[in-house]
Amino acid sequence: MKNKRIIVIGGSAAGPKAASRARRLDENAEIIMIQKASDMSMASCGYPYYVGGFFDDRDQLLCSPAGVIRDSKFFWNAKKIVTHVNTEVTSINRKAKKVEYENLLTGEKGTLEYDKLIIATGAVPRKPQIPGADLDGITTLQSLSDADYLRKVGEEGKIKKAVVIGGGLIGIETMEALNLAGIEITLIELLPQLLTFLDKHLARLIEKYIQTKANVILRNGVASFLGENGKLKAVKLNDGTEIPCDLAVVAIGVIPNSKLAKDAGLEISPTGGIVVNGYMQTSDPDIYAVGDCVEIPNLITQKPVHAPFGDLANLQGRVAGENVILGNVAKYPGTIQTGVCKVFDYGVGSTGLSEQNAIKLGFNNIETVVNTSLDKPGFMKGQLLITKLVVDKSSGLILGAQVIGPGDVSKQLAIWAIAIKGKFTVEDMVNADLPYAPPFSLAIDHSIATAHIMQNKLRGLFKGISSEELKNKLNNKEPIHLIDVRNPNEFEQMRLGIGEKLIPLGQLRSRINELPEDKNTEIVVWCKISLRGYEASLVIKANGYKNVKVLEGGIMAWPWSREK
Amino acid sequence: MKNKRIIVIGGSAAGPKAASRARRLDENAEIIMIQKASDMSMASCGYPYYVGGFFDDRDQLLCSPAGVIRDSKFFWNAKKIVTHVNTEVTSINRKAKKVEYENLLTGEKGTLEYDKLIIATGAVPRKPQIPGADLDGITTLQSLSDADYLRKVGEEGKIKKAVVIGGGLIGIETMEALNLAGIEITLIELLPQLLTFLDKHLARLIEKYIQTKANVILRNGVASFLGENGKLKAVKLNDGTEIPCDLAVVAIGVIPNSKLAKDAGLEISPTGGIVVNGYMQTSDPDIYAVGDCVEIPNLITQKPVHAPFGDLANLQGRVAGENVILGNVAKYPGTIQTGVCKVFDYGVGSTGLSEQNAIKLGFNNIETVVNTSLDKPGFMKGQLLITKLVVDKSSGLILGAQVIGPGDVSKQLAIWAIAIKGKFTVEDMVNADLPYAPPFSLAIDHSIATAHIMQNKLRGLFKGISSEELKNKLNNKEPIHLIDVRNPNEFEQMRLGIGEKLIPLGQLRSRINELPEDKNTEIVVWCKISLRGYEASLVIKANGYKNVKVLEGGIMAWPWSREK
Repeated sequence: MKNKRIIVIGGSAAGPKAASRARRLDENAEIIMIQKASDMSMASCGYPYYVGGFFDDRDQLLCSPAGVIRDSKFFWNAKKIVTHVNTEVTSINRKAKKVEYENLLTGEKGTLEYDKLIIATGAVPRKPQIPGADLDGITTLQSLSDADYLRKVGEEGKIKKAVVIGGGLIGIETMEALNLAGIEITLIELLPQLLTFLDKHLARLIEKYIQTKANVILRNGVASFLGENGKLKAVKLNDGTEIPCDLAVVAIGVIPNSKLAKDAGLEISPTGGIVVNGYMQTSDPDIYAVGDCVEIPNLITQKPVHAPFGDLANLQGRVAGENVILGNVAKYPGTIQTGVCKVFDYGVGSTGLSEQNAIKLGFNNIETVVNTSLDKPGFMKGQLLITKLVVDKSSGLILGAQVIGPGDVSKQLAIWAIAIKGKFTVEDMVNADLPYAPPFSLAIDHSIATAHIMQNKLRGLFKGISSEELKNKLNNKEPIHLIDVRNPNEFEQMRLGIGEKLIPLGQLRSRINELPEDKNTEIVVWCKISLRGYEASLVIKANGYKNVKVLEGGIMAWPWSREK
Repeated sequence: MKNKRIIVIGGSAAGPKAASRARRLDENAEIIMIQKASDMSMASCGYPYYVGGFFDDRDQLLCSPAGVIRDSKFFWNAKKIVTHVNTEVTSINRKAKKVEYENLLTGEKGTLEYDKLIIATGAVPRKPQIPGADLDGITTLQSLSDADYLRKVGEEGKIKKAVVIGGGLIGIETMEALNLAGIEITLIELLPQLLTFLDKHLARLIEKYIQTKANVILRNGVASFLGENGKLKAVKLNDGTEIPCDLAVVAIGVIPNSKLAKDAGLEISPTGGIVVNGYMQTSDPDIYAVGDCVEIPNLITQKPVHAPFGDLANLQGRVAGENVILGNVAKYPGTIQTGVCKVFDYGVGSTGLSEQNAIKLGFNNIETVVNTSLDKPGFMKGQLLITKLVVDKSSGLILGAQVIGPGDVSKQLAIWAIAIKGKFTVEDMVNADLPYAPPFSLAIDHSIATAHIMQNKLRGLFKGISSEELKNKLNNKEPIHLIDVRNPNEFEQMRLGIGEKLIPLGQLRSRINELPEDKNTEIVVWCKISLRGYEASLVIKANGYKNVKVLEGGIMAWPWSREK
């Protein structure tokens, strides 16, 4: 029997994973991987940290955990995989089951037959179609050569000012990297918020934090790049503002690199991703596709999404690598679009649906809550966490969680990600049994406390108001009675200063007569994080007040400026 | 209508939580909490860290997050809860629905009627019934006064040598605390291993690590305490060894403090815990019990267990506090016995069943695997994690996970804890969607990679051998062909030295003729963590060898001494 030949197009993440998995399942298959770039298996998610100086040895981006560069020799010796680098597949002939390729350095062309083909062509950065886009000093942070360029910029120290265009994950990571390299950054975002996987409230908190490190401009796009002698000198925004800079990094998103698949007549989704089934198989049963070039189902909505995450690319590669060898035995179920990024000392992430996305997708019966607390006890140097939880109001099914803060964000996200995958309701989380010891968490873990508040809210015990709702009411000059229930010394150190009265929780019962006589008055109470605020709201309600709300997340989750 | 009176016996963790929850649900109930000690709501899990000098302000053990000491004034002002400290409830008259109490300072006695009673009397440390047990210098680390005593010992610096008796959670935490206070420690454990929630293999790895900081003596108990002038001078072990010391901390476990409940005729389990139903209700419908004095169901086995964890005490308190006010509406489902502790730079923990416990409980069709990897990329200063996963062989249902190492152990445990609660199978974890970015995790998270290996093992692709099995085979002088497949420089730096031959993976295919001719020869391969070992095993198998195994977890999980 002739050995099966597997051709993998793309050698970054999903491709090598698919090729390696295929090899492990069949020592005799002929496996050939064709990579357009000169490097393979690059740790591309690590580029911002190389640029930002978290480590200096560039080889670490290209090495196996044992410290061997993953080049053609490595792939052949360790995995018996033939690799062609600097080589582009120019067309797929599905009828003849052949690919045509061209070596980009030598111009040499060739043809290879396949039994099974795996397309892992990744995504390409969106590029702004505006004047000056070809000036020197404009880049993306997508390839290793981009990373090399930006690292050199940082090391040389000549460039003092840069503009990062795009406030998504890559834009934010690039902003941090260049800031750490000592460059003054302006971050530009066309939308009214950064990081659109977050709801506005949390995005605003991150924006506030980033503003301590960089200039942030929202609701403004780039109209043109201005230059002198072919070199970038400034960025001109839609509103006419000119921002002098010697460097601009464009990070306005990526689109599936599906041209090759499209030209071959494979089914492509309206938004450009290659259409695959659960086996990662395209509309041609002998061709699979994986990674940033495909669309996969969102597990909550079952609608296809483009989810260009490195971890998912690897998992999909594993599935396709298995199926090309064993037939369709492995299924990739889909994503809940879990993502996280580091922003200086903060972690920022989301899993499942945000409120904004849920509403956009037609969920019309959701409940949300914001919880603020430390991640572990203060005496163990606990750090702040802010979580926004989104659930289905009738069933209590958990739909999504966003977590930000200097605390242990990634653990919180992992907890919610598994809970969402497991179709947990709030009730399932309320008595979860998580690892507790003071060096690692609070006695009632932040995630469980969040579920408690949500449970109280669903049952009508906790009536919350979001920062945004309160702000709107204040802007509309609605008559609200505002009460801060912290201690006087806390009030002296920090306060919102939006017209609130201080009544410490411990005095509230004896000072209840200081509240408005009209029991229908809208009353909003808070404390630092709103645990005391919650207790206060119950005391006030028990005294006959009918419209008492707790400011969710307390002062720590207030995203606008404070009096002090 | 007369207000309901709730009496809570016990003011440490579960009691205050129950009282506070009751208050939040009924502003008018009369709530009285009776506490034997002088302090309330102590962060008792924080004692070892106070002793070990992680923080210096003792008040932090007693303060609310807002910095207010949780004394009687606090409970009254903030929560309208009456508290009696230094007061012991001496009996419960169930017929008359009364408790009798005595103030331990003044001798004053009294009686209080209740509508609902909550027993939260906690646990008491086991004490060795051996000669010399009343000498000065012998203590436990159970109460705040114990913590004060040990903290003073550390600050005074007079005591140079101490013995910690008991290698469980508290013993290990105490050992660390006293070591950090500059005291030379000997840790004594009667059983053949430390930390019995771990399987032997992982316990042995922890023992090896602790031995770099303290002397560890296993399989030996304390026969007597030896003293001079009423002061401890040495500990005499069962085998006659005398260990000079001025301090001994006894940490041989705790037993439910259920005497009061027993005397009142409430149902008590054979092992001494108060029997409660899912509502945390005892055999008397007007009496609830919560925390370390009760037994609760293990969610996997449905068998009752004593699980004295601070987080569970709080959750149970919340349930009972709700039920005494609203009737039986809240249920506490039970525990999967998730636990974690810090041991110097290591985290150590378990959730669900260990292999040993599963076997003891009659599970006779389980599969296990050990996975070793970094928690995040090496270039982001990733640290080692070692996980042992236990699953049901036929269904793939996840039964338990143990995780140790300097890496992010608590996140891994949280992931497995939620997965076990969600009744995940290995297949559910294989494509989990966890938060990935290089500062937080590997592209394929350690937990997912563990599931991958288990999936491969269940399908017969990965044939593993545990360190213990291999060690036994070596001891029995079974003829095994041993191969280390790392690079020569790695082999020079570190190796097991148990008779293995070095054949780097990259050379294996061309050197396959160096393997024994007999294709039935038992071959065991490994690398540092056994990813390359796995690949090597597949290459060897593909060459016709029928008995090829991978050393699970590789060199990093080898719990015995190495050649280098």
